[in-house]
Amino acid sequence: MHPTESREITFNACYIKGKHDLSISPKKLEYNPAEEVLVKISRGGICGSDIHYFQHGGVGDFLLKHPMVLGHEVIGTTEDPDTGQQVHVAVNPSRPCNACAFCLSGNSNLCLHMRFFGSAMLTPHVDGGFAEYVAVRPDQCVPYDGQKDDSIMAFCEPLAVAIHALNQAGNVLGKKILVTGSGPIGALIIAACRTAGAAEIIATDPVGKNRDLALTMGADRAYAPDDSVLAGFTDKKGYFDASFEASGAIPAIQANIDYTKAGGTMIQVGMSPGMADIPVTRFLAKEIRYAGAFRFKDEFITAVQWLEKGLIDPGPLLTRVFDYRDIVEAITYAADKTQAFKVQISFDE
Amino acid sequence: MHPTESREITFNACYIKGKHDLSISPKKLEYNPAEEVLVKISRGGICGSDIHYFQHGGVGDFLLKHPMVLGHEVIGTTEDPDTGQQVHVAVNPSRPCNACAFCLSGNSNLCLHMRFFGSAMLTPHVDGGFAEYVAVRPDQCVPYDGQKDDSIMAFCEPLAVAIHALNQAGNVLGKKILVTGSGPIGALIIAACRTAGAAEIIATDPVGKNRDLALTMGADRAYAPDDSVLAGFTDKKGYFDASFEASGAIPAIQANIDYTKAGGTMIQVGMSPGMADIPVTRFLAKEIRYAGAFRFKDEFITAVQWLEKGLIDPGPLLTRVFDYRDIVEAITYAADKTQAFKVQISFDE
Amino acid sequence: MHPTESREITFNACYIKGKHDLSISPKKLEYNPAEEVLVKISRGGICGSDIHYFQHGGVGDFLLKHPMVLGHEVIGTTEDPDTGQQVHVAVNPSRPCNACAFCLSGNSNLCLHMRFFGSAMLTPHVDGGFAEYVAVRPDQCVPYDGQKDDSIMAFCEPLAVAIHALNQAGNVLGKKILVTGSGPIGALIIAACRTAGAAEIIATDPVGKNRDLALTMGADRAYAPDDSVLAGFTDKKGYFDASFEASGAIPAIQANIDYTKAGGTMIQVGMSPGMADIPVTRFLAKEIRYAGAFRFKDEFITAVQWLEKGLIDPGPLLTRVFDYRDIVEAITYAADKTQAFKVQISFDE
Amino acid sequence: MHPTESREITFNACYIKGKHDLSISPKKLEYNPAEEVLVKISRGGICGSDIHYFQHGGVGDFLLKHPMVLGHEVIGTTEDPDTGQQVHVAVNPSRPCNACAFCLSGNSNLCLHMRFFGSAMLTPHVDGGFAEYVAVRPDQCVPYDGQKDDSIMAFCEPLAVAIHALNQAGNVLGKKILVTGSGPIGALIIAACRTAGAAEIIATDPVGKNRDLALTMGADRAYAPDDSVLAGFTDKKGYFDASFEASGAIPAIQANIDYTKAGGTMIQVGMSPGMADIPVTRFLAKEIRYAGAFRFKDEFITAVQWLEKGLIDPGPLLTRVFDYRDIVEAITYAADKTQAFKVQISFDE
Repeated sequence: MHPTESREITFNACYIKGKHDLSISPKKLEYNPAEEVLVKISRGGICGSDIHYFQHGGVGDFLLKHPMVLGHEVIGTTEDPDTGQQVHVAVNPSRPCNACAFCLSGNSNLCLHMRFFGSAMLTPHVDGGFAEYVAVRPDQCVPYDGQKDDSIMAFCEPLAVAIHALNQAGNVLGKKILVTGSGPIGALIIAACRTAGAAEIIATDPVGKNRDLALTMGADRAYAPDDSVLAGFTDKKGYFDASFEASGAIPAIQANIDYTKAGGTMIQVGMSPGMADIPVTRFLAKEIRYAGAFRFKDEFITAVQWLEKGLIDPGPLLTRVFDYRDIVEAITYAADKTQAFKVQISFDE
Repeated sequence: MHPTESREITFNACYIKGKHDLSISPKKLEYNPAEEVLVKISRGGICGSDIHYFQHGGVGDFLLKHPMVLGHEVIGTTEDPDTGQQVHVAVNPSRPCNACAFCLSGNSNLCLHMRFFGSAMLTPHVDGGFAEYVAVRPDQCVPYDGQKDDSIMAFCEPLAVAIHALNQAGNVLGKKILVTGSGPIGALIIAACRTAGAAEIIATDPVGKNRDLALTMGADRAYAPDDSVLAGFTDKKGYFDASFEASGAIPAIQANIDYTKAGGTMIQVGMSPGMADIPVTRFLAKEIRYAGAFRFKDEFITAVQWLEKGLIDPGPLLTRVFDYRDIVEAITYAADKTQAFKVQISFDE
Repeated sequence: MHPTESREITFNACYIKGKHDLSISPKKLEYNPAEEVLVKISRGGICGSDIHYFQHGGVGDFLLKHPMVLGHEVIGTTEDPDTGQQVHVAVNPSRPCNACAFCLSGNSNLCLHMRFFGSAMLTPHVDGGFAEYVAVRPDQCVPYDGQKDDSIMAFCEPLAVAIHALNQAGNVLGKKILVTGSGPIGALIIAACRTAGAAEIIATDPVGKNRDLALTMGADRAYAPDDSVLAGFTDKKGYFDASFEASGAIPAIQANIDYTKAGGTMIQVGMSPGMADIPVTRFLAKEIRYAGAFRFKDEFITAVQWLEKGLIDPGPLLTRVFDYRDIVEAITYAADKTQAFKVQISFDE
Repeated sequence: MHPTESREITFNACYIKGKHDLSISPKKLEYNPAEEVLVKISRGGICGSDIHYFQHGGVGDFLLKHPMVLGHEVIGTTEDPDTGQQVHVAVNPSRPCNACAFCLSGNSNLCLHMRFFGSAMLTPHVDGGFAEYVAVRPDQCVPYDGQKDDSIMAFCEPLAVAIHALNQAGNVLGKKILVTGSGPIGALIIAACRTAGAAEIIATDPVGKNRDLALTMGADRAYAPDDSVLAGFTDKKGYFDASFEASGAIPAIQANIDYTKAGGTMIQVGMSPGMADIPVTRFLAKEIRYAGAFRFKDEFITAVQWLEKGLIDPGPLLTRVFDYRDIVEAITYAADKTQAFKVQISFDE
């Protein structure tokens, strides 16, 4: 790559500055066109962690130390350097170092030096994608043909999370699957299991509208976690080949040990500040494999391909789209789980 | 198999009748020579669960409801039906049904209808092997040439447990391994990892003599769990490709999440009546695979082969051998962990 | 299972007696209702091996030594012993022993004592399912609700073969797939890869109508094997994560070594009496895993579930349905590959 | 890494210039101390490909276009930049790009841009290690404590090849293994299988002295390929869980299909310019997985660790050590398979 003079551009961005302190401010960005691609953002999805930063000024141990651009579920367009034509791209918010032992063993999601959009883990923080422009490494751009609507393609990041959870479980083809928690990620896991050929998908969620969503997204049946019918799944050392825990609720983790078949797999996708009380001997004697699913690797590309080909339809998840200038209203709306599944912000003029 | 008249034989057996109620009593056994093999027992090893039955009248939820013959680590001799010659055999205490879904998928250790020696899980209880004779299914007998001493070969069952733990972890060849807890099972896991080509084996145990045993059995280094050097293993998302938790101590489980490399494997071998408090998000973000190891499958045959070929030497584990008529003295001695690793009882005249 | 008096029933069956010697004859069947289920056959699909028996009087080394009922792709109805109601069932033509080492390790398709419908491998031969009735072991019956048409459900056996091929390749989710040969099995593999979430599916076949079928069944593109565009797939050590060779053509096997990505998987599904000339060093240096896919295991159940739920549509494969009494006409028609994909025979009155 | 002025050094090296044209000539090397480590070579092993270059002026399609330093099995010493002390290092002859898709997925041995010591694959060719000095990337140096003799440690590269073959086969712990061909690589595979806990190892080789070596290295038994006892291994769909083909002989490949258990694994390590005639249907019906093993990845580190710890003893393989100035005599001696297994050259003063 030949050295080039860097360029500078100033544009609007959604800055989170602290608890309940979110606003549009100008961002001045310097980038190197020889190494980075400038993407004009068209659409972004609001994720639970964005809401956390807004509500608490941080996520877990990662507290805001200075203003940071929010957002990591974004798509946009960029100019093809050869043809000059506009190309639709999904922006992968992961920027692994591609040099540490994790990256070189195919586990870039565990990268020691990951720079992930809109995260206060490192200081200075890594700016996110809720902005008119982002400059990213070329390998962060996944082009697509642009025939599908932005509202669909903007699901590529959470869908990548869901697909990575499937890959952590191994092959779900023909398998009996339990998904506990039918928020956006749980619902996308349900849909992904259907797209990947699962034989039977059971969902649980305490909220009726989430159970309805689960059914819409491909679950065969959906139950409240206290439904007595679930007891039947504990017979004969458990029923499900794999369970996906997408709620972060501790009782769900414990119940899944009983519902998951001996020798089966439990994937933890839902985060929780709490501790999962695992009954040691019962867990041991069933030889269940319990593993987390953290972000994604190549599944980001798969997500774009599935959405582009219409192999999966995240449409039912989208509750509302706001103009990005209404980011405070949008995130406040998104935070109200009684009404919203997924809320997007648009950067279209 | 042609029907045959059943035979009857009466002999001495070590009956546990309740808490601290263990004695030699005659056992009358009826068996079918067309379907079962009569084995004259020569040696048996006392396991932690045997001690539990003696000290508490049960193990976990499995309480003694009637007298039961103790013991599941036994070897002996049987007559070859064709040649009439005596054959040395290790007796596999597992009798899976070979018909349930678990058995038919290669997971006989998870059998729905397992009959395991010396266990009060089923009622009537399944008698164990601390007796002059046992009658077992032919596939429970693994013959060996008899060149190794009984004191060595009687380790086949606990070694099978250790090897199964390795198989649950996948391939340990060239891997960095942590073993927490260096009692008999932990020490055999250490030795098995060495026999299986692990690159580096670190052991932890609060007791000095157990750490010495760990080093004897093949550990590269052994530390007390509170040794400050261990903190270094948490750097860069953890050090060990796989950890084996063989103590059942809850703090060890939690520490292993930090010591085990992101994407690595944690195998739970040590049982505990307690709950393992797993920090959900930390566990999830490291994508560690956590799984139990319960008993064994074909690893019983591997254990016999390794012992017979001298690929592994359990000798340093053996503390003392008692005559079976001194079973109470033997089990009392075995229960004193300050002096004993493995105690065996002998049925030789 | 309590002993019961056996029953006897006589009905029409399609007997192959030698080369071009196929006719309807009465079959007298004795079966034990305590151990076997009587199924009234409704529909059957004609497979390539059925055609081979008709054309050559045998398949490979397995020559007809006495008359044998043809057919192994059949569905029907049976009476529920408890309710007396008619139940729709797909009949699994595999009857593994469930006792050999292969069966007990989860590989029943490799059973040492397999009894497979309509096969002259054993003598006496195992009768097949092109008959008004069959008596089978209960575990050979997979019930379904009967809402889908017989013409769809009769694809469960070849679909099971296709799904097993996928399982041999591992997880096809998000993968780039090549399928060489778009006859019935190749086309079902294409459809199964689509149902299992493959990212991109390329098909090759020398026959135009087969390429059209491939596209209908879910291939992204279909090429003649000599199309120059295929050369591009050899760049950078190959393009496809997995290839399925469903033609049995030796040149296809060799080409797949070039088209399949280094470290990828080649599954051989198409049989051939010939030898695959594998260039040793080239094959070795790409570290491709090459493995056969033979019949199926639990995939038979998955096939029934996918068909029942409409996750896959084999409809485009069905060329024509004949009355079973016209079996000679049907098999002659099926043998003409210029007109037929899959031909079925019906036992409806 | 801060830029530094490059340095230049001139020393003796073993140059192959064409068929039978091998001699010591001075090499002038320019290297960058900020990015490369200068290693003083102490010992090197002669490999079959070195002999090929000498005898044929090339290996397969890779013909010499200009003089090239031979050799890729070398160890030496380097100066620790911090302490100034001499450190023993094994030199990994692989220099993958660490940036292509293969490198980033943990398959650096399949790197698109691999620079491997002493190989004419690229032009200009990559110089090898039979020289007084080499300059390599720091990650190509694996330090060891230097307590073992050079003659032992110089086996790290061929041992890495052997261990990689094991990893391609999966876990050999407790498995029944066949190794066909007991030259240096076959013999090291035998020893590695023993070190990795295989249960039973059978070797075949037409040459008596190679069979003796196989037994010395850990084989339980060794047979000539035409020994009638081998026929017994074909019963019940084959005997061996995994076979390693280390001869490159086509008949061995075919025989291994029969000897390897259905569902088992065949690893091809031996190269051959020929074609392996695989009987398609027989191969398919056994569902054997056939895969190559090409060079190594992290196994190079494992090899150093095993040798350093004495877990494996390659000593019996070493036939003779020559001074590097006698390279022609050494390689001529090494080429005579009736007398030599492994021949090394020494750079000690």
